[in-house]
Amino acid sequence: MKLTDEQLSEIKNQQSQSNKTKRVTAPELEKILYEAIPALDHGFVRVVDYMGDDTSIVQSARVSYGKGTKQVSTDKGLIKYLMRHWHSTPFEMCEIKYHVKLPIFIARQWIRHRTANVNEYSARYSILDKEFYLPSQSNLAAQSTSNRQGRGEVLEGNQAEEVLELLKSDAERTYENYETMLNERFDGSTIDENKKGLARELARMNLTLNTYTQWYWKTDLLNLMNFLRLRADSHAQYEIRVYAEIMLDTVKKWVPITHDAFMDYRVGGTEVSAKGKLVLQKLIKNQSVDIESSGLSKREWNELMIAFNLEDKMI
Amino acid sequence: MKLTDEQLSEIKNQQSQSNKTKRVTAPELEKILYEAIPALDHGFVRVVDYMGDDTSIVQSARVSYGKGTKQVSTDKGLIKYLMRHWHSTPFEMCEIKYHVKLPIFIARQWIRHRTANVNEYSARYSILDKEFYLPSQSNLAAQSTSNRQGRGEVLEGNQAEEVLELLKSDAERTYENYETMLNERFDGSTIDENKKGLARELARMNLTLNTYTQWYWKTDLLNLMNFLRLRADSHAQYEIRVYAEIMLDTVKKWVPITHDAFMDYRVGGTEVSAKGKLVLQKLIKNQSVDIESSGLSKREWNELMIAFNLEDKMI
Amino acid sequence: MKLTDEQLSEIKNQQSQSNKTKRVTAPELEKILYEAIPALDHGFVRVVDYMGDDTSIVQSARVSYGKGTKQVSTDKGLIKYLMRHWHSTPFEMCEIKYHVKLPIFIARQWIRHRTANVNEYSARYSILDKEFYLPSQSNLAAQSTSNRQGRGEVLEGNQAEEVLELLKSDAERTYENYETMLNERFDGSTIDENKKGLARELARMNLTLNTYTQWYWKTDLLNLMNFLRLRADSHAQYEIRVYAEIMLDTVKKWVPITHDAFMDYRVGGTEVSAKGKLVLQKLIKNQSVDIESSGLSKREWNELMIAFNLEDKMI
Amino acid sequence: MKLTDEQLSEIKNQQSQSNKTKRVTAPELEKILYEAIPALDHGFVRVVDYMGDDTSIVQSARVSYGKGTKQVSTDKGLIKYLMRHWHSTPFEMCEIKYHVKLPIFIARQWIRHRTANVNEYSARYSILDKEFYLPSQSNLAAQSTSNRQGRGEVLEGNQAEEVLELLKSDAERTYENYETMLNERFDGSTIDENKKGLARELARMNLTLNTYTQWYWKTDLLNLMNFLRLRADSHAQYEIRVYAEIMLDTVKKWVPITHDAFMDYRVGGTEVSAKGKLVLQKLIKNQSVDIESSGLSKREWNELMIAFNLEDKMI
Repeated sequence: MKLTDEQLSEIKNQQSQSNKTKRVTAPELEKILYEAIPALDHGFVRVVDYMGDDTSIVQSARVSYGKGTKQVSTDKGLIKYLMRHWHSTPFEMCEIKYHVKLPIFIARQWIRHRTANVNEYSARYSILDKEFYLPSQSNLAAQSTSNRQGRGEVLEGNQAEEVLELLKSDAERTYENYETMLNERFDGSTIDENKKGLARELARMNLTLNTYTQWYWKTDLLNLMNFLRLRADSHAQYEIRVYAEIMLDTVKKWVPITHDAFMDYRVGGTEVSAKGKLVLQKLIKNQSVDIESSGLSKREWNELMIAFNLEDKMI
Repeated sequence: MKLTDEQLSEIKNQQSQSNKTKRVTAPELEKILYEAIPALDHGFVRVVDYMGDDTSIVQSARVSYGKGTKQVSTDKGLIKYLMRHWHSTPFEMCEIKYHVKLPIFIARQWIRHRTANVNEYSARYSILDKEFYLPSQSNLAAQSTSNRQGRGEVLEGNQAEEVLELLKSDAERTYENYETMLNERFDGSTIDENKKGLARELARMNLTLNTYTQWYWKTDLLNLMNFLRLRADSHAQYEIRVYAEIMLDTVKKWVPITHDAFMDYRVGGTEVSAKGKLVLQKLIKNQSVDIESSGLSKREWNELMIAFNLEDKMI
Repeated sequence: MKLTDEQLSEIKNQQSQSNKTKRVTAPELEKILYEAIPALDHGFVRVVDYMGDDTSIVQSARVSYGKGTKQVSTDKGLIKYLMRHWHSTPFEMCEIKYHVKLPIFIARQWIRHRTANVNEYSARYSILDKEFYLPSQSNLAAQSTSNRQGRGEVLEGNQAEEVLELLKSDAERTYENYETMLNERFDGSTIDENKKGLARELARMNLTLNTYTQWYWKTDLLNLMNFLRLRADSHAQYEIRVYAEIMLDTVKKWVPITHDAFMDYRVGGTEVSAKGKLVLQKLIKNQSVDIESSGLSKREWNELMIAFNLEDKMI
Repeated sequence: MKLTDEQLSEIKNQQSQSNKTKRVTAPELEKILYEAIPALDHGFVRVVDYMGDDTSIVQSARVSYGKGTKQVSTDKGLIKYLMRHWHSTPFEMCEIKYHVKLPIFIARQWIRHRTANVNEYSARYSILDKEFYLPSQSNLAAQSTSNRQGRGEVLEGNQAEEVLELLKSDAERTYENYETMLNERFDGSTIDENKKGLARELARMNLTLNTYTQWYWKTDLLNLMNFLRLRADSHAQYEIRVYAEIMLDTVKKWVPITHDAFMDYRVGGTEVSAKGKLVLQKLIKNQSVDIESSGLSKREWNELMIAFNLEDKMI
């Protein structure tokens, strides 16, 4: 990640602010506010604003339950209770805003989470940065043979180099031709004074999907957790997981009690179906159980055994 | 509006906070943060948190348009441009949270604005306050004869007194019977030690719709303006307009530039249909125009003339 | 439930339609289309329109996964896979519209599910029906002593009768006074020709929360399942559960394969936290485990044991 | 647009369905149901399902207003009234589902409309079609000099040919390299038996933004109109306008009365600010008015004059 001088100076300015407020603050998050945390080869994640902290969740829950919550003695106990019982609205009372730089093909996955506010850099108005994502060699995986969606083993030797070379040269050439069509270089200089440039909204179509874009992305804590549960998961594509893990860390700095409950109940937890429950019950009670009588498919059976670290019972 | 000692002390505590933050702040809004602004006879509106200010809107717009916005010289010019052209997403970058106490029948209108986060006091858990909305005499209007939805002239003399007496005595009696069913008074004391109390989730059904409830309500600036455009409008029910006008004032303290643009383009503005445009054009050009050739219904024609202060041309 | 002649005739008209369409249809749901299924004492649920069926879910999933899904041989297998792995968007491709009559205090719970379209009967325009919910004696439960939110034992004998009498007389009197204020009876007749009536938007505030209202409520299958998971649950208030169970039955007629998967994975399933998983693993492997070392609170421990029918291990 | 034999046969099957239903139907829309209407060079729009028609809007409005709407005599009058006064919820009672094939850079604009359900072809699972958007020569416009976002004059002669050649060759080469990395051709054949293929979720990043994707897109009529107002507008990018105009035509076949009201009040209508209203009033009353006293900026003044066809008064 390389920031322009202009960006570095903007960040420095933002970080040097020291305003007084009657609002609650999250001191650990303040420490990294505005900082550009590197992600992939040219991307970053910056927290640029936030509202509320763990106590805001507690406060709105206590408004809901009134005197009824007095008996839950601690904030931690209440937050865990809310998380466990899917009382989700108090978590909506906290809000966070990120500035993210990311490859377009990842932006396309990300935007599917609809309950967020977004302002993306517009390639109708402005020229996109000359930056493309090129995977490190250790991330150049082959298509998985068992999972239609995932990655298998890493490509080796020559093939990895060939792939990287193709990605690099195609990105560079399409970008160069983008400039040619615009009749303008990334630095703003005109190429040929005697020519017009193609409209930006058209020229952009020549760029490859690993070109970087950027956006402001703002969401509430509940929807952020829904995003992170899916995108920090081991089945998520590696490239978005990199971002999700950075954001998970910002959640820890922001709302540490909620973060703990989230890790325990959601990220580390699992769902068991009605049929799966019966299987586990029988295993605990040492009753005989087999896949035929369980009503589970082979796939479901194995997923259940893996979830509970019972690989020896897989079929 | 009468706050309990507990509430007064909570507000005082909140207001005495003085935290340092690197976030942007809205100094005028900070001055009234947490303050309970009275609304109707027992209600209030309190701003309890916020995120961003006018510069946040500008900042995210500039991220979108990149170098393309450099030519719009001022923040004010840019915000007006965004408002005028319905470039609405930058306004979503600001967020505000209110604590509101309001009658249930108004809460039922309010909640129809779905794009907000809400935590309402739960009458399943706790006993509702013994407070009911009773209109002032000047607001006791008769059903409008011209508008199926609105109010006409004010009720006079005896009839107004009779109505107020009915509202008051019904609210008091139903509340008293609510306590009887609960076998518990509002102050927490048990009525009859030998009896059980009816479940709160059931007993509440005996209360009248003017009973007060309260909630935390959080939304972004765009959705707040959508709410205010409808609810601060002269066609909105008076009782919700009272709240909307207080909130409009908090918007002015929070994002003054946006507030001005909103008042000019939305609140004070009007929509003209394609047919209506032709009528106005002809009037300006001193060409003959009449309702028959305009394609407008009588109702539309008159609404157009009223919108442009041309009452003399009404039919 | 008593429908007016006008309503009965409208339903009959709707049911006698026989249109040709190239759209997919759900034959079992067609059989009960428009029918008013009774709920509580005066309420009902009617399916008034729908879009799609089980094959619509499969079809859009196959568009997403393209050739990648060819190996999942059956529709049933694919729907179960989607449900298990929270691939939720294909379930949004089906839509249903209900006409529901329900008490206002239940409508207030219901409306908290924001991702639906709603048109409610407006008491600003029209007079509400003279119908109130009165619980059957077997549903007159006392406040639970263990659960701040729920119901405990049923009230007995005199107390039950007293409660019902209070509910009934308060609802009747407040409704009568509502008519007096309106100067108009429910049947449309004027009470006193020499008086004006109070505006409807004001008079309605005198009604109790068990008064019935009605609305059209439209949502997609995913959001409907989210609603049903919470509202058909044993912890939901009985009065909303009655509606949820009727709707669950309409889901079965509409999308039977999805219904089965939903019952297995969501309704009958359970979530286990990271810590809870370790406890179950140890129990299966016959390793020693106790609450202290588990990191679970007493409450969490007991909830886990109950979820897996291991009441003998409760503490 | 070239459909595969498989697609043609699926469409034929769908169109040959003839089911009986008690639901309302839209006969004109039924005629084109499932048909692939061509858009751009390889794209299409297909209506694949719908719910409701004009009468559904009327029906739910009448539920809301109850007896209060009896005086609005016709369906057309009521729908116009709803549109004019932004009573928007009845329009949410109709739903439509499209199958759309479109270039990725247009999909990225489109998806910003968040209130819709989407299932997009996944390039993690499957190989994207070998189809790229290449503008016709008459659409190869230069960047506008007056509008940072728009298009100016068309490129001429050699330059247009050069641009098209660049777009074509870059798309073809990046697609060929995509196949090389996958070690698999679009037709499913393996390139080199001794090599692994790069994971699809990675290889896709080499494609250019004019590559076609496809999705199922479902929304309600209100949100569809919001989409169309922005995207069928003359300021929208030509490539998305092509789709919007096709969809506008499907709306006409589906809900003709609503379509008329939408064209009159929204598409053909305009918004006038508070200050703009005063200017128009003065012009009508033949009072002197100039830009200084109006409080309008030069830009606003000219936009107003253009909106009302008063180009002679532009400054």
